[in-house]
Amino acid sequence: MISTDIAIIGAGPVGLFAIFEAGLLKMRCHLVDYLPQVGGQLSEIYPKKPIYDIPGYPTVLAQELIDNLMEQGKPFHPGFTLGERIEGLEKRAEGDFVLTTNMGTVIESKVVVIAGGLGCFEPRKPAVTGLEQFENGRGVNYMILDPEQYRGQKMVIAGGGDSALDWTIFLADIVEELTLVHRSESFRGAPDSVNKVMALAESGKINLILNSNLNSVSGTGKLENVEIIHNKTLEVSNVEADHLIPLFGLSPKLGPIEQWNLNINKSAIEVNTDDYSTNIPGIYAIGDINTYTNKLKLILCGFHEAALMSHSAYQYMNPGIKYTMKYTTVNGVSEF
Amino acid sequence: MISTDIAIIGAGPVGLFAIFEAGLLKMRCHLVDYLPQVGGQLSEIYPKKPIYDIPGYPTVLAQELIDNLMEQGKPFHPGFTLGERIEGLEKRAEGDFVLTTNMGTVIESKVVVIAGGLGCFEPRKPAVTGLEQFENGRGVNYMILDPEQYRGQKMVIAGGGDSALDWTIFLADIVEELTLVHRSESFRGAPDSVNKVMALAESGKINLILNSNLNSVSGTGKLENVEIIHNKTLEVSNVEADHLIPLFGLSPKLGPIEQWNLNINKSAIEVNTDDYSTNIPGIYAIGDINTYTNKLKLILCGFHEAALMSHSAYQYMNPGIKYTMKYTTVNGVSEF
Repeated sequence: MISTDIAIIGAGPVGLFAIFEAGLLKMRCHLVDYLPQVGGQLSEIYPKKPIYDIPGYPTVLAQELIDNLMEQGKPFHPGFTLGERIEGLEKRAEGDFVLTTNMGTVIESKVVVIAGGLGCFEPRKPAVTGLEQFENGRGVNYMILDPEQYRGQKMVIAGGGDSALDWTIFLADIVEELTLVHRSESFRGAPDSVNKVMALAESGKINLILNSNLNSVSGTGKLENVEIIHNKTLEVSNVEADHLIPLFGLSPKLGPIEQWNLNINKSAIEVNTDDYSTNIPGIYAIGDINTYTNKLKLILCGFHEAALMSHSAYQYMNPGIKYTMKYTTVNGVSEF
Repeated sequence: MISTDIAIIGAGPVGLFAIFEAGLLKMRCHLVDYLPQVGGQLSEIYPKKPIYDIPGYPTVLAQELIDNLMEQGKPFHPGFTLGERIEGLEKRAEGDFVLTTNMGTVIESKVVVIAGGLGCFEPRKPAVTGLEQFENGRGVNYMILDPEQYRGQKMVIAGGGDSALDWTIFLADIVEELTLVHRSESFRGAPDSVNKVMALAESGKINLILNSNLNSVSGTGKLENVEIIHNKTLEVSNVEADHLIPLFGLSPKLGPIEQWNLNINKSAIEVNTDDYSTNIPGIYAIGDINTYTNKLKLILCGFHEAALMSHSAYQYMNPGIKYTMKYTTVNGVSEF
């Protein structure tokens, strides 16, 4: 069992900055994120995009900001549980919490901070009859974890964004047969990737089916066939396949948090702006996942929320003890 | 007359970041500061000190942060009036404002934002009988603007901090006679400066009087004599002097703002945390100068306040027009 002062759900920029603010008050943090790495959307969705609205940075790459926040929190030795999702939350009589992940990891903490951004990113699933029966190892997957497992097999990828294009290029050399299905004639991805995919199709290395959608899937026990329908002619074609990977992007969901009796308003957690506490004492929500009058979903606002939350969490953990803020410019940052 | 959307009183880090947030909403800013340069305390008091609590900066020099904030606001072409203090404020029937500085500069603005930090820094004056009669050009000054005006004259400097030491070193070669008076035996300044001052005293270039205080001043029409008293022996000595410069540091004062009928609580302006507005519609207060429940005097909190203030100011200036926030990561920053 992991034991900590503050369990932070979400390791995006706001969760990471909370390590620093909590650390100045000598509180230890443990962060849990469903993604396999820290950084939230910034590292997962747009690591190489410049951000212009971080105060004091005329421009900074998303991943660079995350790296700097990790560096800033380092003196306070945070713990991380990545690639797992918090599913269970129990508040004990003593006022502290026990959290459980989908993998069975148990975390005991005095305070819980939800810094979950837009929520857990779950794959968008196409509306195709019978798709579910082939999930969980029987041929249908919504993300590619280990490309090697597809070596020498027959595969259909569906989608027209960067993910679909990049994986098509990468897997063309690994799989025996690859079909890319896209609903329109033009792609939303990087021009360079589009060119590469077109070249692969022309050379016959992949099979490119445009203006078409997935229609149905079939097989005995495991996936064997994908039926594809043309958008305009409504002509149907069949492709033999061991694997179907629909890559239609990720859609944010609050997930298990919705069951915790927190006050939720339009998929966001209501907080008191005095300290960004929720309706459950000891649970706070900071960053894009919270809502209040005039809320702006800006990283810089989450930073402020992390600071006020930390001072309130300190009071929650140390009732009656008065804390006087010390300035880092005067006192520096002491590791602990 | 200067005409602008937002008049910002104070050009410290929070006032400077407000340029950027207002600029994203296509509002123009004009900043006024009593100090001769932008940056507030950071540039005036500790430009070379590292700051550790700016999110995303494990460490940054105070002046470097200011330079970056100036760069970030550049696309929005802010105006500056430096070295002047806002003294008059008039709200017109139309809901806009007319501000006047101590130098007679007039600024017309739709919204006023007070980002004055700890207030105007005014020199701390020693309690010496008759000191006031020699102020305003008759021998007593609390800061040195043009060292050349002291060339060939007799001068007394009082104080034991970096200012007193640095000016003593600098002026030793310029003035005819220089006496440094300090109340204790040890100095609070940089060791290197202390050594230089000691060397100047040993070589007879300056006259160093320790463990002593200013006792009284006298002269006919202008300063002629400074009387100094020893702390322990209470012995009194007289020094002929054309100039006396007490350098006992700066003390922050709210100044003329106190007369504007704003709700003030312990030298800070009360604001509504929904948008950091004051009790007067159209006037906002952000950064260290405001107060609310759980207020933390942190630069990062001022950044958040600047963002929420900007969106509210937009509504004040454009009643009934709905604004949808655009993300800079998606849209970039367009100059205007």
